[in-house]
Amino acid sequence: MPQARIVGIAGSLRKGSYNRALLRAAIECAPEGMTLEELPIDDVPLYNADIDIDGSRPVAVERLKERIRAADGVLLVSPEYSHGVPGVLKNALDWASRKGNGKGSPMAGKPVGIIGASTGGSGTMRGQEQLKLVVAGMLMALFPHGGVVVPRAGDRFDDQLRLSDDKTREFLGKYLDGLLGWVRRFE
Amino acid sequence: MPQARIVGIAGSLRKGSYNRALLRAAIECAPEGMTLEELPIDDVPLYNADIDIDGSRPVAVERLKERIRAADGVLLVSPEYSHGVPGVLKNALDWASRKGNGKGSPMAGKPVGIIGASTGGSGTMRGQEQLKLVVAGMLMALFPHGGVVVPRAGDRFDDQLRLSDDKTREFLGKYLDGLLGWVRRFE
Amino acid sequence: MPQARIVGIAGSLRKGSYNRALLRAAIECAPEGMTLEELPIDDVPLYNADIDIDGSRPVAVERLKERIRAADGVLLVSPEYSHGVPGVLKNALDWASRKGNGKGSPMAGKPVGIIGASTGGSGTMRGQEQLKLVVAGMLMALFPHGGVVVPRAGDRFDDQLRLSDDKTREFLGKYLDGLLGWVRRFE
Amino acid sequence: MPQARIVGIAGSLRKGSYNRALLRAAIECAPEGMTLEELPIDDVPLYNADIDIDGSRPVAVERLKERIRAADGVLLVSPEYSHGVPGVLKNALDWASRKGNGKGSPMAGKPVGIIGASTGGSGTMRGQEQLKLVVAGMLMALFPHGGVVVPRAGDRFDDQLRLSDDKTREFLGKYLDGLLGWVRRFE
Repeated sequence: MPQARIVGIAGSLRKGSYNRALLRAAIECAPEGMTLEELPIDDVPLYNADIDIDGSRPVAVERLKERIRAADGVLLVSPEYSHGVPGVLKNALDWASRKGNGKGSPMAGKPVGIIGASTGGSGTMRGQEQLKLVVAGMLMALFPHGGVVVPRAGDRFDDQLRLSDDKTREFLGKYLDGLLGWVRRFE
Repeated sequence: MPQARIVGIAGSLRKGSYNRALLRAAIECAPEGMTLEELPIDDVPLYNADIDIDGSRPVAVERLKERIRAADGVLLVSPEYSHGVPGVLKNALDWASRKGNGKGSPMAGKPVGIIGASTGGSGTMRGQEQLKLVVAGMLMALFPHGGVVVPRAGDRFDDQLRLSDDKTREFLGKYLDGLLGWVRRFE
Repeated sequence: MPQARIVGIAGSLRKGSYNRALLRAAIECAPEGMTLEELPIDDVPLYNADIDIDGSRPVAVERLKERIRAADGVLLVSPEYSHGVPGVLKNALDWASRKGNGKGSPMAGKPVGIIGASTGGSGTMRGQEQLKLVVAGMLMALFPHGGVVVPRAGDRFDDQLRLSDDKTREFLGKYLDGLLGWVRRFE
Repeated sequence: MPQARIVGIAGSLRKGSYNRALLRAAIECAPEGMTLEELPIDDVPLYNADIDIDGSRPVAVERLKERIRAADGVLLVSPEYSHGVPGVLKNALDWASRKGNGKGSPMAGKPVGIIGASTGGSGTMRGQEQLKLVVAGMLMALFPHGGVVVPRAGDRFDDQLRLSDDKTREFLGKYLDGLLGWVRRFE
C-alpha cells in the first residue's frame, strides 16, 4: 500500500503557537503508512477575487493549491478566536477551495481531520464546530471523530514546545491511526 | 439626541463587490439620527499575536481599533465563503477584538448588525450564522432581526453597482431604523 | 424598581439532572431585584403544526406560552446531546416561539441567558453555540457573556445535587447580576 | 452488489408536511441499487435518561434503533424551526444515538445525507448547518454535497403533495445517486 500523504495546516502565525507545536507533535506521531508534512500559510496574502484569476494569483497561493491537490488528505490544527476560525486560516482556505487553471477545487472530495489546542479550558471546541461547517461547505469528507481538543496546553507542552504529556500523545497517535483509515477509504 | 455613529465593515476586498455596494446603499439609506461610515480593512495585515503588543501593532490596526472604539455601533456587510465568514473579515475582527494600550476590547459590549448579499440563492444565510456566533464570542450585543439576506444580487444592483431594487432598498431602510433603536439602548 | 421576573427552563427531564440542579442553584443565587422561577416542560408534547391552532393547543403549551409572555426574561439551563440542543428543550421552544391567540411570539424581543453543566469536560460549549443561534432565530436579545459552562459537574454538586463548589456558585451569582442588568435594558 | 438500504426520517409530524412529501418524492426517485424507506418517529416519546436503560426503553424507541442499526445509511429530511433542528427530529436522534442492549450507538459510523424543504426562501439552509454538526457529533459520515435546499415548496408540490417540479425532481435524483455512491464506501 502506498504512503498516504497528508498536509497539515496550522491556524496560527505566532512563533510560539501551541497549535504549530501540536502539528509538529502530530508529525512525530504519524503512524506507519502516513506521511504528514506542514504546509505553511505565512505568505498567503489576503483573499481578493480580483486577482483570483488564472495568471494573476500570487505564487504562494498557487503553491498552496498544488500541494493540497497532490495530497491524499488534510489535517487542520487550529486555535479558535472569538469562538470562530482564525481569519488567517480561513483566508488560506478561501484561496485553496477555489477552482482555477482548468481544475476543480483542490479541497472538494478530500478527506480532512480537525484538531486544536488552547491555553484555556475550551480546547478550541467552538472553533472546531465552525471549521467543520466550512470543510463541509468545501465538500470535503470530514473524519468522524469525537475530536482532539487539547485544553490547558501550557501544562502539556514543555519549554521547547514539545508535547510532553504522554496521555495526549497517545490520544493523538490513535487519532492519526483513525485518520489514516479514513483517508484510505478515498484512495 | 446626538447622532448615533455606526461604522460599517464590508467583508470583501473585490472592487465590484456586491457587499461593498450594499454597504454604500446602506449609507445612503441611513435614517435621520444615524451616521454610517465605511471602515476599510484593505490594509489590515494577517493577524500575528507576536506583534499584537503595545507599540508593535501595525498602524492600520491601531486606526481600525480606534475608529471602532469611537463608534456607537458596528454594521457588518459580508459575503459568505464556503458557508463561513470570509477570512479577510474575520482577520480584521481578530485584530479588532483584542485588548491593548491599557484598554479593553473595542468590540465588547458594542451593538452590532449583520447583513449580506450573494449572487446565488443563499443570500449569505449560512455565513451570517457563523458571524453571529463570532460577535457573540466578542461579547457584542447582536441586533435581533430576521436578517437582511440579499440573494441574486445581480438582479438588484445596476451596472454602477447602485441598489436599484426598490423593495430591497425599503427593507434595508427599515432594518437600519431598527438597528438605530437597538444602538440607542446602549448609549 | 420592580422585580425582574425570569423564568428558567431546564433542558433535561432526568430526575437527577445536573442542569435542573444548576437551575435550582441559580434560583438560590438570584440577586436582589430578580425573581427566578423554574418553568417545567415535562408535560409539553411533541410539536405538531396541525394542532398549533387557536383552540387546539394542549393546555400545557398554552400555560408555557403565557408564563413566558408574562416574564421579563428567560434563562435556559441545558445539557448538550450530540453537540446540539436536546430535543426535549428545542421542542418546548418550538411551541413557545410561535404566534397565536392574536398575539405575537412570546419569545421575540425577550432577553435571554444560556448556561449549562456537563459531567465531561465540554461544559455544554458546543450545544450552547447552537442554542445561541436558535434564540437569535427567535429574535430574542441574547445576554452577551463569555458563558457559564460547568464541566465535570460530578465534582461540583454534592449527593443531594446541591452546588457545593464555592467558585462556581460565586461565578453563577455574578452571571445573574449581569443578566439582571441586561434584562433591565428591555423593560 | 446487494441493495443499499436507507432509512429516511422526516422532521415534521404535520400531515401536510412538505418535508414528508419530499421524503416520499425521494422514495420514488431512489436509484437502482437503493431501497429507501420511511422510518416514522410519531410515536417516539420525549427523551428521558431515567428510562434510557436496558429493559426500560419504550417499544417505539427500541424499534427505531433496530431499524437504523439494520440500515446501510440514513437520510434526514427536515424543516428548520427558528434556524435550528425541529425538537421532534432532534428528540428521535437523541434516543437513536445512544448505546444500549450491549451494542454501540446505531448512528456511529453510519453514512448520512441531509435535505429539506421550506415554504419561504431559506430552503432550511440554517437548520441544515446545525443538523450537520449534530450528525458529526454522533460520529456519522456526512455525505459531502452542496445541499438539497428546496425553497418555496408551495410552488414545487401539487395539491396532492406530489413533487411536480421537474428540475427539483431531477436534482433530487442526482443527489440520491451521489448518496448511493457515498453509502457504498462504507459497506
